[in-house]
Amino acid sequence: MQRPGGRTARVRAQVLRAVEDELIEHGLAGIQLGRVARRAGVGRSTVYRRWGGGAALVADLLESMAATSLPRARTGSLAGDLAANARLVGRTLADPRQGALFRAVISAAEVDRAAARALSTFYAIRIAEWAPCVTEAVERGEVPAGTDPEEVFRAVSAPLYHRLITGLGTIDRAAADRAAATALAAARAGVFVSDAETRDESE
Amino acid sequence: MQRPGGRTARVRAQVLRAVEDELIEHGLAGIQLGRVARRAGVGRSTVYRRWGGGAALVADLLESMAATSLPRARTGSLAGDLAANARLVGRTLADPRQGALFRAVISAAEVDRAAARALSTFYAIRIAEWAPCVTEAVERGEVPAGTDPEEVFRAVSAPLYHRLITGLGTIDRAAADRAAATALAAARAGVFVSDAETRDESE
Repeated sequence: MQRPGGRTARVRAQVLRAVEDELIEHGLAGIQLGRVARRAGVGRSTVYRRWGGGAALVADLLESMAATSLPRARTGSLAGDLAANARLVGRTLADPRQGALFRAVISAAEVDRAAARALSTFYAIRIAEWAPCVTEAVERGEVPAGTDPEEVFRAVSAPLYHRLITGLGTIDRAAADRAAATALAAARAGVFVSDAETRDESE
Repeated sequence: MQRPGGRTARVRAQVLRAVEDELIEHGLAGIQLGRVARRAGVGRSTVYRRWGGGAALVADLLESMAATSLPRARTGSLAGDLAANARLVGRTLADPRQGALFRAVISAAEVDRAAARALSTFYAIRIAEWAPCVTEAVERGEVPAGTDPEEVFRAVSAPLYHRLITGLGTIDRAAADRAAATALAAARAGVFVSDAETRDESE
């Protein structure tokens, strides 16, 4: 047994930092475990034994990113909270290093099931962290009862990720504010009320 | 010089169909030009001479997809037109073959500049085709003057692509209708009026 924060944790941190560098420079297909070990300053056999492959390394990187809590905003209004979330997502995706990392991780998730599962889990954790902004807005009467917090926060992120993957439009503060305003307008109009999907089934 | 629709066009169609199959089965990293040639029933040297690599094949595939016109809806209301667009995008992404193709192409665009440019062009062409739905809605007074058609259609697609890449939520008819309703609510609220981004700059 090793103490938390001991050698095992240190090795993991070094290896995951090296995986980030590898992903940004070479993408999933270009990850070489030997080079990861060298960058991390650990033995090759450690990396092979503990992770075994590039996809497992990406999955572990996402798990570690998800564990890094980004506390939600508490601005007192849903408009303010959604704008704070959108700007956070926008800054992350527009950052040269983080943006490249997300591109590489998304690309990895398209071809590898373990990476895809890790990516879904990462987003689910982040969304759960921010969900109370919406439940509190319901209590304040800003949006209709039954508004689904997950749908609201997915709607905030979606236009920014769409820009990232299509290359159409820049990811700047104006884009973030427009993404937040889009989600807010839809939430106010009742688009994300949970049983809304059953309403149109008969069409 | 070869006649349009002659041997050159036939070879291209066969090769691009083979590229689709390769992408769906193996992704960009797994594309083998020899296998593409064999699937297409053409000589290896033809594929090497004319395309030279997997990324160029993907770029040409996107160019050919963009040239396949998908005429826009004319339902008489923006709500109807946006729903038609969202269902079209949703059906495409949810289709096992087309969905896998888009996943592979997005993944390719993350690692290859030529594929990224081809993907941006593809989306720009599709959006331009549908833009008149919004300009007509402005004329009918359904949304404010100055509403940017591109922004509206990107907002329709974004939640569906977000589901594709994050793996969160299914891409079904309800999701498509919610994507259309989100874009419509935001458009009505004036979120996509072109100079809206300057309004909040002073914050």
